[in-house]
Amino acid sequence: MKRSPSDIVATYHFPPGVDAQKQAQVIAIGQTLGSADAHFAGRETALAAVRAHVLDVRTDGEGSLADIVFPVANTERDIGTLLTMVFGKYSLAGPAKLVDLVLPYDVGTRPRFGIAGLRARLAVPDRPLLMAIFKPALGLNPHDHAALLETVANTELDLIKDDEILGNLAQAPTLERWRACRPVIEKIRDRRGREFLYAVNVTGRADRLLALARTLVAEGANALLLNVLVYGYPLLEALASDPEVGVPIVAHPALAGALAQAPHHGIDYRLVLGRLMRRAGADIVLHPARFGQLPFSAADEAGVITALRAPDGDWPPIFPGPSAGIKPEIVPLLMKDYGNDLVINAGSAIFDAAYTAQAAVARFQDAMVGGA
Amino acid sequence: MKRSPSDIVATYHFPPGVDAQKQAQVIAIGQTLGSADAHFAGRETALAAVRAHVLDVRTDGEGSLADIVFPVANTERDIGTLLTMVFGKYSLAGPAKLVDLVLPYDVGTRPRFGIAGLRARLAVPDRPLLMAIFKPALGLNPHDHAALLETVANTELDLIKDDEILGNLAQAPTLERWRACRPVIEKIRDRRGREFLYAVNVTGRADRLLALARTLVAEGANALLLNVLVYGYPLLEALASDPEVGVPIVAHPALAGALAQAPHHGIDYRLVLGRLMRRAGADIVLHPARFGQLPFSAADEAGVITALRAPDGDWPPIFPGPSAGIKPEIVPLLMKDYGNDLVINAGSAIFDAAYTAQAAVARFQDAMVGGA
Repeated sequence: MKRSPSDIVATYHFPPGVDAQKQAQVIAIGQTLGSADAHFAGRETALAAVRAHVLDVRTDGEGSLADIVFPVANTERDIGTLLTMVFGKYSLAGPAKLVDLVLPYDVGTRPRFGIAGLRARLAVPDRPLLMAIFKPALGLNPHDHAALLETVANTELDLIKDDEILGNLAQAPTLERWRACRPVIEKIRDRRGREFLYAVNVTGRADRLLALARTLVAEGANALLLNVLVYGYPLLEALASDPEVGVPIVAHPALAGALAQAPHHGIDYRLVLGRLMRRAGADIVLHPARFGQLPFSAADEAGVITALRAPDGDWPPIFPGPSAGIKPEIVPLLMKDYGNDLVINAGSAIFDAAYTAQAAVARFQDAMVGGA
Repeated sequence: MKRSPSDIVATYHFPPGVDAQKQAQVIAIGQTLGSADAHFAGRETALAAVRAHVLDVRTDGEGSLADIVFPVANTERDIGTLLTMVFGKYSLAGPAKLVDLVLPYDVGTRPRFGIAGLRARLAVPDRPLLMAIFKPALGLNPHDHAALLETVANTELDLIKDDEILGNLAQAPTLERWRACRPVIEKIRDRRGREFLYAVNVTGRADRLLALARTLVAEGANALLLNVLVYGYPLLEALASDPEVGVPIVAHPALAGALAQAPHHGIDYRLVLGRLMRRAGADIVLHPARFGQLPFSAADEAGVITALRAPDGDWPPIFPGPSAGIKPEIVPLLMKDYGNDLVINAGSAIFDAAYTAQAAVARFQDAMVGGA
């Protein structure tokens, strides 16, 4: 069995003791025809065109791997039908982990900005971008947010974002937060002659979330934050392609561990936070860093960052955003391993520190110069 | 620390070797304030109102459990902000599994029908409902679907659904599938004087999916199928509350295993397919059965079915739909354990069997009588 460039190839890892050859056949048939002995007179040709095929099964150090080729015509060339096809029902069969996906170049939704577009918009041609997070996460009103922004108004910070747990709450409704912050954002922009982006967290039922995103942008919002694993890749694709949105989108990894953290189940981080985010239209993907506060292996870190930036036909590379416990001393380590195409994302180290926010930003800037 | 009925209580399981007391504190602070040493002068009262508290930590047979109380005001009383708060960032910290949630009665989106509403609509006051699945899943055109429907036109089947992998494909566009099937559906209804529901699979980017659902209903569609874990609970909530939709919604478990199957990570099936589905507005939730084709323990089966039907204030109970490899001989076993409030969901046993579809339906009906 060969693959054509228009096919989808999914790779599954099985732990020791699983008959990988047999399970690969179960996937190839079960995820396309639905059952192996489907009898539908005269439909043999039509059925042959939709079924998947086992490309390769091999052992690795801890178990086995199987590559399975799926016809792209079984999908809508989007992430929703892709995921349902390659792992929907089979995720319930386990143990198996979906570890890789090779996708034709017409599957997914392109990012509007990517690395090149964001650098142009922010007028930062080369160094890593620096992003802050409003802290504390909850308990502030819209004026508190504006006051926090004032404390960084004289810095060269590139972006700021809401904490992911800050929804559209009575204490600080999202639109009012944006309205309170907008004058400060515009003052910063006018002072330094380049954009300052505020990724506003969009939340709510899917219909309300889409409406909120459009309203925010209509009122001047210049970036959005989305908890993609909570709201779904299909919602990220909707935002990334909506003509009334059109601003950079920051993808947050909330809930990603529930899919990716287990050794023998779920979907690998390189897909959950890497390839699928890139193919769903994110411009920046936040993820744990191995020197940060969350447990994240060097292999997972490299897997995610490579998936976001490595050449993939003419698909634009997008920014990795190492996050969670990022301090200035980590910055040179990140730059040594991954270069400059990073968004350094710091919350507590900027707003909860023993420094003024302005001094904290300066320490990050010094660290970037040190890492260059 | 006590809880009030308006609080959310989340229960986490930690494997042996984890300092559960410490991790419970990490969750209580990290998932609300964002950091433990937030200093924001004069905000102590506001911050105290948003932080979570550890209610109880105890050991169980294999590890420990922690109950944590969260203020409901930190959420939008929907599933999206709920999940982000209780397990968003912490899912990346692991190992830990979210195993239970106690929710105030105003969190979520009520089902439009539930068990009572569906029984009334289908005029089936007491026995289990019987649902078929179009098989094979892929490779049929709209007329093939209509032809399959004709084979069950003289039965007392209650519902039929698309296979979950059947998207809006060039070979059988969703709207055309519905248009081809509609006359047969209406003929069945008119012959027997009661409804026959066809749960049409809605797919696509979030914006397109919502539009497709509205269009289908405007053209007469009388039920919808949603792969909730692929498209997100917030999208299910949107469908369940959309005034232009208003038809029963069948929730499919595709991808649920990626969240729930691992022993020490992710979210328990009783939440993923149980409580969260019920609180997000589903009327029927499909799930594996322990005597079926997929591995599913008696405890998982009972956990899901109980979560869907057990008293929960005035929240309506909804139908469990045991699925995947359901044969007539399983029906009495299911009814013995769980009674009549079930949707028996069979695919291959109805359309791929060595019987005519009409004979296959009759065998299921006989099995129900035997199980009663």
